Amino acid sequence: MPKPLPISRDPKSKLDRILRISARCFAEKGFDATSMRDISRATSSSLSGLYYYFKSKQYLLYLIQNSAFITILERLQSRLQATEDPSERLYLLVQNHVEYFLSHPNEMKVLSHEEEALEPPLRDQVGSIKRRYFALARQIFEEVVVDDLAPGLNSRVAVLSLFGMMNWVYKWHKPELDPGAEDLTAAIVGIFLHGVIPGSARTRGLFVVGGSRRDTRVVLESAD
Amino acid sequence: MPKPLPISRDPKSKLDRILRISARCFAEKGFDATSMRDISRATSSSLSGLYYYFKSKQYLLYLIQNSAFITILERLQSRLQATEDPSERLYLLVQNHVEYFLSHPNEMKVLSHEEEALEPPLRDQVGSIKRRYFALARQIFEEVVVDDLAPGLNSRVAVLSLFGMMNWVYKWHKPELDPGAEDLTAAIVGIFLHGVIPGSARTRGLFVVGGSRRDTRVVLESAD
Repeated sequence: MPKPLPISRDPKSKLDRILRISARCFAEKGFDATSMRDISRATSSSLSGLYYYFKSKQYLLYLIQNSAFITILERLQSRLQATEDPSERLYLLVQNHVEYFLSHPNEMKVLSHEEEALEPPLRDQVGSIKRRYFALARQIFEEVVVDDLAPGLNSRVAVLSLFGMMNWVYKWHKPELDPGAEDLTAAIVGIFLHGVIPGSARTRGLFVVGGSRRDTRVVLESAD
Repeated sequence: MPKPLPISRDPKSKLDRILRISARCFAEKGFDATSMRDISRATSSSLSGLYYYFKSKQYLLYLIQNSAFITILERLQSRLQATEDPSERLYLLVQNHVEYFLSHPNEMKVLSHEEEALEPPLRDQVGSIKRRYFALARQIFEEVVVDDLAPGLNSRVAVLSLFGMMNWVYKWHKPELDPGAEDLTAAIVGIFLHGVIPGSARTRGLFVVGGSRRDTRVVLESAD
């Protein structure tokens, strides 16, 4: 059972605290199996107070999902003010995402596992912010990669593969064993931009597998 | 509600059919919210027959998870017989994984979302096969990358990032819009080995972000 935290008098921080504890409850037990009574106990808030502020468990889930994406998007937009360099902007995208979710693993799990638990029209509202975030990520990516892409790879597939690397982290990251946000950001950006083996322009080529030739080149050969 | 499928007289294919339909039920409603009665209806099997063959809903979940990993691992081991080439073996790892999960999206969702719903000791048994699969993937990776890796990147982080790209596919892949298994395999292998931008040995370097220098090199410079 999560321990109750001391209640702050600042309404914004009280709201944030309730959202964080609720995210932990949903992450631990699942949205369906968690009752408003569980959340009342975990947050040391009265049940009537919870319903007064949050209306329903659905709305609480909406606020968790919505505020996570709003926070990520606003932080990223603010960070992007610092540079026009495409590679640096990609670095900031990854850094911002990785930092947020390494420090908010419960929110990550709720976003991933309870995406469909949120009903319309609240789900559509979260979907709309997610689309804005994805569009910004894609725009950042398209500024980095100016050459044409090889068949099978397009900016949608590339950016979603990048999100795959970042969003799977909550499944495996052990703080005592694995790199922190800065090294993990560098690792993911490095793989995404340059791959795990050096000199890709020289080593990439055709694989012969099971008798048929498959071209695994991701990008057109560089000019030189 | 899933439509009942015709029952085959072959016990193995009947078992497979029940596992696939159960995976669909768990993927749609969640493990906790799905009853054995739901599965009985969806599979057109008697409730007593289900309990006779599967003992419990836990055991059914175990069989879904276990048989998915067994199938993936056995298919991969069989495919790996074809070649000793490290890059080709990595290609086969990705191809095998992507092919299986593109054709088994419900199983992927159940593996990802219901990992913790399985209780010990059944969870440990699935964990043991997963560890064998991960160890094989890591061994394949380590044959590909012979140079030392840069700080922040190790074979664990690299292989888990690769799994991130592959395992996130079920969240976004739309068959009518996105590349099929072959092109998607080539895209993921390409990003993983060579990155999205060409000539990584020339273009990779130091990013200057927010005044501090971060080295995003993933691997040591190649010798030439």
